[in-house]
Parts: sequence; C-alpha cells; structure tokens
Amino acid sequence: MKKVELTAGKLKGLKMLADREGKFRMLAIDQRGSLQRMLASASGKDKSEIGYKDLALAKRLVTQYLSPYFSATLMDPQFGVPESLKYLAKTSGLLVAREKSGTVAAGYNNREKKTVLLDGWSVEKIKKTGADAVKLLLYYRPDSTPEIKEYQENIVRQVGEECKKFDMPFVLEPVGYAFKDDEPSTDSAVYAKKKPDIVLKITEEFSKEEYGVDILKLEFPVNLKYVKEFHNGYFDGKEREAVYTLKDAEDMCYAITRTSRLPWVILSAGVDITEFVYNVEIASKEGASGFLAGRAVWKEFAKYYPNEEDMVAWLSTSGVTNYWRLYEASKKAVPYFENKQFKSFANIQLADSGEDWYKKY
Amino acid sequence: MKKVELTAGKLKGLKMLADREGKFRMLAIDQRGSLQRMLASASGKDKSEIGYKDLALAKRLVTQYLSPYFSATLMDPQFGVPESLKYLAKTSGLLVAREKSGTVAAGYNNREKKTVLLDGWSVEKIKKTGADAVKLLLYYRPDSTPEIKEYQENIVRQVGEECKKFDMPFVLEPVGYAFKDDEPSTDSAVYAKKKPDIVLKITEEFSKEEYGVDILKLEFPVNLKYVKEFHNGYFDGKEREAVYTLKDAEDMCYAITRTSRLPWVILSAGVDITEFVYNVEIASKEGASGFLAGRAVWKEFAKYYPNEEDMVAWLSTSGVTNYWRLYEASKKAVPYFENKQFKSFANIQLADSGEDWYKKY
Repeated sequence: MKKVELTAGKLKGLKMLADREGKFRMLAIDQRGSLQRMLASASGKDKSEIGYKDLALAKRLVTQYLSPYFSATLMDPQFGVPESLKYLAKTSGLLVAREKSGTVAAGYNNREKKTVLLDGWSVEKIKKTGADAVKLLLYYRPDSTPEIKEYQENIVRQVGEECKKFDMPFVLEPVGYAFKDDEPSTDSAVYAKKKPDIVLKITEEFSKEEYGVDILKLEFPVNLKYVKEFHNGYFDGKEREAVYTLKDAEDMCYAITRTSRLPWVILSAGVDITEFVYNVEIASKEGASGFLAGRAVWKEFAKYYPNEEDMVAWLSTSGVTNYWRLYEASKKAVPYFENKQFKSFANIQLADSGEDWYKKY
Repeated sequence: MKKVELTAGKLKGLKMLADREGKFRMLAIDQRGSLQRMLASASGKDKSEIGYKDLALAKRLVTQYLSPYFSATLMDPQFGVPESLKYLAKTSGLLVAREKSGTVAAGYNNREKKTVLLDGWSVEKIKKTGADAVKLLLYYRPDSTPEIKEYQENIVRQVGEECKKFDMPFVLEPVGYAFKDDEPSTDSAVYAKKKPDIVLKITEEFSKEEYGVDILKLEFPVNLKYVKEFHNGYFDGKEREAVYTLKDAEDMCYAITRTSRLPWVILSAGVDITEFVYNVEIASKEGASGFLAGRAVWKEFAKYYPNEEDMVAWLSTSGVTNYWRLYEASKKAVPYFENKQFKSFANIQLADSGEDWYKKY
C-alpha cells in the first residue's frame, strides 16, 4: 500500500494537537465578543467597560488552570496570546485564530455574513509564535447568495495556501447561521430541520483538497434541544418541537464521517456542558476524532468575575471536572492517524523522506 | 522591577525545551560520523557500508524509545528528522542541528577547525518543521588564530540573527579541541590543565548579546579523569596524572555560572554514563540548568546493531535507567526562569505585551 505523505510541519502540528491516544481533546479560549458580554453581565458593567485587561486576565486564568488537561489550546492574538502564552502547559498544543471577531453584514437583506481576517495578523506571524496550527472561523451557508459563498470560499483558500506555505495544520470551523425569511434564528424548528443538511454540505465542500484544510471543526449536525428524547426542556427548561430523534443524530454524525475526507472534531457553540457531553459522545461513537470545546467547558467561571479567587476555584474544580466528562464522552473518538486519509500510523511518512529530504524540504 | 521581555517564539521555545520543573533534561541523537563508526564497529563492516538506512533506523529507535522521557530531543536533518519526527514524543521539545557534520581543517599547521553550515538547510527550514529550537555545534578555541576565531564568531552571529528573525531559541554548543604543539589530544594532562580556562573564556565570549544565543551547551570545565579522586583509572581503567581535585571541578562550574549571562547545560561528549552522572551532578549543584546528553545515554545500544530487537530491549531498559540516573543527578539544576537573566517566572513577560501586541509582532 502506498504510504500517505505529510510534510514535517503538518505532521509535527497534528501530533501536537492530539493527546497520547491520538485524539483531539482541545480547549477554545479565543472568544472575544461573547466573553466580553459574559464579563459585563457578571460585573453589572456595560460591555464597553470590559477592556483588554479584563479579557486578558480571564483568558489567562482559563489557560493556566485548564490547558494542562487539554491536548491543545486555541487562543486569539488580541487578548489571548500576549498574556496567556506564558501560562500554556507544555503538553497542550497551540492553535491561534486568524479571523477578526465578528462578521460583516452582507448579501440577502444584509442578513448574510462575511468573514474578515484580522488586520495586522497573519499565518506567518502565527507560525513565528511557535504555534502548532491555524484556526479560521467561517460563517457559511451552502445556500447563500453566490457572491457571498465565493467570497467566503476564497478566504478559506487563501488561508489554506498560507498554511501550506508555512507548513502548519489548518483547522477550519465553518458554522451555519440563520438568514432566510423563514428562519427566525438558529434556535427554531425551521432552522433545526435544515441544520443536518447545512452541516453535511459544509463538510462536503471543505473536504475538497483545494481548500488545504487539515481538520474540520464542525457543529453538531442536529440541535439536541429539538430531538424527541430531549425536546421537553431537558437541557434548559424550554419546551420545543420534536423534529428528529437521537437515532437521527447518530445517523447524521455518521453521514459526516462518511462524507468528510478529513478528521473532524465537534465544537461546543455555547451550549451547556450536559448537552455538549451528549454531542461529544454521539459524534465520537460515529467517527469524530474528538472535540474543540469552548464555553461549554468554562463559561460558568465568568459568573465570578471580577473575583479572581472564585474564578480560579471554579476552574480548578468544576472546569477540570468538565474536562473529565468530555474525556469520558470521547473515549470512542477515532485517533487522527486512523482517519480514512491515513488509515494507520504505520501508513504515514514524511513527504520526500530519504537522504535528500533536507534539501527538498 | 522592570520585567524581562521575551518574544513569543523564544518564550514558547524555551518552555518546550524544559520539563515541568523548568529544567532542561534533553537528549541528543544528532550524531552522524560518530554513530556511523559505532554501527560499523558493531556489525564488523566498514564505515562506508553504513548508510542512510542504518543511521536513520538507529536514530528512529532512540527517538521512539527515549524521547518520551527527555524534555527535548535534538535531531539532525539528514538522518534524523526524515524518519524520526513521526516518533518524537509530544512531551519532548524538538531541537534541530544547523551545522554540517565534521569540520574543515584550517589555520595553524592545519590543525584548527572551521564549522560549515549544512548546505540546503536553514534556520527558516528548521522553523518550518515546527521545531522549537536551533542548535549549532562550534569548535572554538579562545586562543586560536585571529582569522579562525573571527570566522567562527561570524557563523554564530549569522545563526543568531536568523534565530531572531524566525523567533526561535538558539542553543550554541561551543566545544574546545587540541591543536597546539604541546597538546597531543584533549585526553592529555596538558590539555586537561588548559580546559577550565578554555571553557570559561568560551562562556564569556558567547554570553555576549551580539551573538543572540539563548542557551549555552557547554563541556564540563574539567576532565574528571584527571582529578585526584578519579585519576587512578576509576572511569576507564587507565591511570592518568592528577591535575586538579573535585573541589576544583565545583569551583569551575560555579565560575561558569557566574560568568554566563545565559542558562547553561552540560554536554556529554562521548563519556560513559557513570562519568557523565558526576558531570551533571556537579554542574547542577553549581548552577547549570540541566543537560543535553548524547552518547552517554544511548551509546551501548549500538553494540547490538543490526539486531533491532536487542537494540530496542537495551534502549527500553538500560537507556531508560540512564535517563533516571541523569534525572536524579540534575535535581539541583536551576529552572531556566530562575536564571539571572529572568530571576523569576513572574518577572518574564511577552515583549510588547498589550492590546497592540499582534500588530507589533
């Protein structure tokens, strides 16, 4: 069997993102707008009063107390890296975000979204920090207006090219959103019904080699609040329409695994830990390679802001417990090297391996 | 107190080289010529018959079975990286060599040595692999002919500049050698007497900021085979002149600590593990930050070449034991962040840390 070749930076990067089981059990603390809102609400301040120092401190605490558990940590370059890098555990790989927080309204009724890369930042700079991977958040609808789709796809291609040039893994996070007339929000039965198809088409699109993506960070393909087994307010007390079953959720995750050329991980999208544990368990059982979890892991610590002692106490107890719940839930996750792309560890080798590797590289 | 600023790549790199105690307990498997000779001798072949495959296999086995123990692993790009990178433990940082194996004869009676950088290789490529640091081996005598000294110093400056540009730690390994008429070899009483002064002057020279070095990898400043306590053939059965005492060895290590602006580690230079354990113990007690150990750790495994099963059995038992002996011997080593340059962990911060860090970086 012909071996699958990986360049040195991509191989080293993938290894740094996975844990010793070869699974991606990653932490996201690159939130900007959403964390700002949480800290404002906790301290009874206006969002505008929550500045660099507040965000940098919160991110630093999450990094310091939780990164020792997670196989990798995702930071943003504005409020994360400058204060948190020093506190990143050696055992946790480093991903850094490339995009600017927020999006530009565009397209149909100005309800579509365009991603903007962070000005003054680059894949080259991410590589320079010693980071192991680049992450790009991309709002995307397979059924959006053609010029918006093309615009978004071009950004992915561009970042993919740069990741190739600087030889580091590219983690793409394509996320659907509501913009059509019949979609009041993503938390609606209408959107819930469309979600499986959106996530699957996203998977199909960004699995294409032309984008240069290495890992897909995906939404759970159904909204568990709308499954028959949980629709009665199981997660948040609010009753919703039952639009599918747990079996549908499993089938959809399996469909993603079949469709994706790449290892994929599940994102937490602000849901509570209990719901996210279900997401991770189902996705892992159906072929995901782990998770990249943000607010689901740490959001409650923000309630203690600005009391640092309480924030730390929460992180080092409940935060750590959340890691272990996710660890358990992801026991069946597929090691990255068993992904269909590689098939097995033995089947991976360095591209151009041999006596002249260092000249060709 | 003004904080000490480190750039992101240098800070991340240093963290990756140290273990959780902040100490450098590093493994060197970048030997080329010396490993070739060992494998030839073990298999009864001529040196010329030991090629890429033999060297690459030996290096891969050392990496696979020992890197999980050491805080970092030093590889060469010719026979190491292409086969070994895949097997590097995630917990072990990666250093890659910049120089070509061997030196060019020059200067006085053609007995002086000039370092040659490996053609087709670069600091930029080292960075691209995702490595954490660059290592340069430099033969150097403070009392060599001026043009040779200048030539060697210029190479250090050049690599130092490139490490700054690509923002990664620079580990310099300046090593003395015998070349004067009264010096039959480094294993002579004449050379042993000169060694403390050579190592100390080397420390003084390459501590200068102009070279851009981050960690000094130094020889033990005395030759323990010539100390009063061991001169009677303690290490290798061969009796030698007693030219100093163990107390002198301690004093010389302490002198290095006082002289060096930088964290320093001790190299093993082919001595046996028993002698190296003494080196590490004394150096650590007197202010070194750990070791970067090569043949002392693994050389006996080469005797089993080409029997892979025996090589692996040796590495995973005696090789691992050697790590633990060195771990114990380096218990008093100084964490890098307690080095005089930094004073304490709290005193380190990212250069240009703050809201505009990502723009300025």
